[in-house]
Amino acid sequence: MPLPVTHPLSDGRTASSPLVRALRGDRPETTPVWFMRQAGRSLPEYRALRIGTAMLEACLDPALASEITLQPVRRHGVDAAVFFSDIVVPLALAGVEVEIVAGRGPVFAHPIRTASDVLALHPLDPAALAPVREAVGRAVAELGGVPLLGFAGAPFTLASYLVEGGPSRDQLRARTLMYADPHTWAALLNWCADVTGAFLRAQVEAGASAVQLFDSWVGSLSARDYARRVAPHSARAFDALRGLDVPRIHFGLGASEFLPAMRAVGADAVGVDWRLPLDEASRRLGGDTPVQGNIDPALLAAPAPVLEAHVRDVLDRGRAAPAHVVNLGHGVPPDTDPDVLTRIVRIVHGS
Amino acid sequence: MPLPVTHPLSDGRTASSPLVRALRGDRPETTPVWFMRQAGRSLPEYRALRIGTAMLEACLDPALASEITLQPVRRHGVDAAVFFSDIVVPLALAGVEVEIVAGRGPVFAHPIRTASDVLALHPLDPAALAPVREAVGRAVAELGGVPLLGFAGAPFTLASYLVEGGPSRDQLRARTLMYADPHTWAALLNWCADVTGAFLRAQVEAGASAVQLFDSWVGSLSARDYARRVAPHSARAFDALRGLDVPRIHFGLGASEFLPAMRAVGADAVGVDWRLPLDEASRRLGGDTPVQGNIDPALLAAPAPVLEAHVRDVLDRGRAAPAHVVNLGHGVPPDTDPDVLTRIVRIVHGS
Repeated sequence: MPLPVTHPLSDGRTASSPLVRALRGDRPETTPVWFMRQAGRSLPEYRALRIGTAMLEACLDPALASEITLQPVRRHGVDAAVFFSDIVVPLALAGVEVEIVAGRGPVFAHPIRTASDVLALHPLDPAALAPVREAVGRAVAELGGVPLLGFAGAPFTLASYLVEGGPSRDQLRARTLMYADPHTWAALLNWCADVTGAFLRAQVEAGASAVQLFDSWVGSLSARDYARRVAPHSARAFDALRGLDVPRIHFGLGASEFLPAMRAVGADAVGVDWRLPLDEASRRLGGDTPVQGNIDPALLAAPAPVLEAHVRDVLDRGRAAPAHVVNLGHGVPPDTDPDVLTRIVRIVHGS
Repeated sequence: MPLPVTHPLSDGRTASSPLVRALRGDRPETTPVWFMRQAGRSLPEYRALRIGTAMLEACLDPALASEITLQPVRRHGVDAAVFFSDIVVPLALAGVEVEIVAGRGPVFAHPIRTASDVLALHPLDPAALAPVREAVGRAVAELGGVPLLGFAGAPFTLASYLVEGGPSRDQLRARTLMYADPHTWAALLNWCADVTGAFLRAQVEAGASAVQLFDSWVGSLSARDYARRVAPHSARAFDALRGLDVPRIHFGLGASEFLPAMRAVGADAVGVDWRLPLDEASRRLGGDTPVQGNIDPALLAAPAPVLEAHVRDVLDRGRAAPAHVVNLGHGVPPDTDPDVLTRIVRIVHGS
C-alpha cells in the first residue's frame, strides 16, 4: 500500500517543508530544527496537562497525546512536531507488563531472559494501535504544513529493556544473552522489530511525514557486534515501512564508531550525538548523507553567548554534509528552560 | 625522591614480574592477567569480611584493606594485586563528605557547583594518607614477587561525581560547568588532580610497583573537549609521581575515539574497554604502546566455550601490540562466578 492520497506528503502539505526537503538531501532556505523530547517534561504547559495521568495512559489518550504533540510547535516554532509517545508503547500494546517510572524509565514486571520467555511473547494486534493512529491523525489535522515525525525504538534498545527489566548502564545481561544464546537473541530482536515496525507504520499511515528510529543503548556495543547481531533486526524494523515512501532518520547514542552501519539498515539520514563533530560524522558517512544533530544538551544551561557560539559551530560543521537537520545530540533534559530552546530556533532560522 | 632501595621494584622482587615487564613493552613468557575490581564483591571471602563494615571504613582499615587486596591473588593466581580502595578515598581524606552507597556508588552531601564551592575545598594533608600507606605496606610485605598495582580516579571522573553529587548518566551538570565557567572547572580539576595524585604517590612510595589512573566517565566527552579541558589535568595527576619510575596505565571507558590523547598525558600503557578490538586499538596508538584489556564482562556469564573463544580472540588481537596485559574491558560485575575468573587466568597462562 503506497501513501494514501490524503497523506500530508502526497497532498502537498509537507513535501516541500524544510524538514522533508533536508531529509531528502536538499538545502532548504531555512535550516530545519526540532528537538528530541521537545514534547514533554521541559514545558510547563505539558506538566500542567499531565497532572494525575500516568505516562502510558497519556500516550494512549488520543486527545491528550495530540495536544502534547502540538505544544512545542506552538511555543518554539520548530520545523517538526514529534509524536508524543514512548518507545515502550508498542510493547505495552502487545501485552507486556510495563510501567514508566518518573526519573527512572520503563520498568518491566517480568524480564525476558530465556527461550521460553521469548516464545511466550504475543504478536501485536494491529487493532491495538487504534489510539496511536487516532492521536497522530488529530495532530496532523492541526499541523497544516508542519510535518509530524513518527518514531519508534530500535530492536536492540527495546530488547535491552526487556532483558534487563529496566534501564541499565551497559546492558550487561542483554549482551550476555546476545553472546550466550544467539538464537533466542535473534528471536527476541525479531519480535521487537515486528512490534516496533508496526508502531512506526501505524504512525506513517495516520499521517507522519518522516520517521526516526531511536537506538538509545547501542553505544554499549562494538562495531562488529552492532553489524552482526543488531543491524539486521533494525533493518527488519524499517522494512515494516515498505511501500511507504517517507524519509527515515536513524539515531543512536554513542554510535560514532559505526555511523555507516546505522545508515545501511535503511536510513536516509543519520542522527549524531554530541560526541562527534558533524563535519567528521559526515566524512565517516562518505559525504553523501543528510545528518541530524548535534547541539550538546550540556550547553543548554550555559550562558547565552556560550550556547550561541556552540550552535553556530554546529551549523558551520553541518555544512560539510549535503543537508542538515538541527537537533540536540540527545533528548531535552527535564530541567531545561524552554526559552533557551526557542532562542536556538531563532538562531537557526536566522542563520 | 626516587624509589626507596627497599621498594619491590628496586630490590629485585617485582622488576622482572610479567606485569611490570609487559607494561614496559616486553613480551614475558607468561602473559600477565589481572581484573579490574578483582578485590571485591564477586568473592564470598570478601563479602564475609565486609559484614558490618561500611565501604570507606573498610578502605581505611589497614589490616582489612590489605587482606582484601590479597584475596584474589590467592584465589585466582593473578599477576597483580590491586590495592583495595575506592577512587573517592582521597576526597574523603581531604574532608569531602561522601558515602559509598551499595548498588549506587558515591553520594556527596554537598555537590560542588560554584567558584566558592571550589574555593572552600581543602588541600589533602599528606598525613591523612597514613592508613593508605600502611595498608599498601602490609600487602606488599605478603606479596613477594607479585606486584601491587596502585590506582586512583582521574580528575574528570572525580569532578563529575563532585558536581553531580553522585553517579549520573552523561555527566550533564559537570559538562555544563566545563563550558559555562572554564575557570572554576579548571580550578576544580586541578584540586582533584592534586588530591588524587597525592593518593597515587602515597601508594607508590609504600610499595606499589605500577599504577592505573581510571577515567570511568570520560566516554561522555568529545575527543576535542577531552584534549582541551580534561587531559591537562590528568597529566597533572600523573605528574605527582615525578621522580618515581613506575609503569603507568591509563584506562577510560568509552574512550575509543581518543586513545592517543589518553596515552599523551603520561601513560606507558593504555587500557581499552570491550568496544574496540585490541588490534584496532593498537593501530590507533601507532603500534608502539602496550595495551591492557579487553575481555567483555558480558561474556563472563556465557557458556564456557563461548567465553574461552572470546578470551582466545582477545589474546590473538593483543599480539598486534608490543605487549599485552589481559584484563576485562570494565570492572568485574558483582554477580560474577569467581571460578570463571580463575578459569580465564588458566587460559591466559596456558596460552
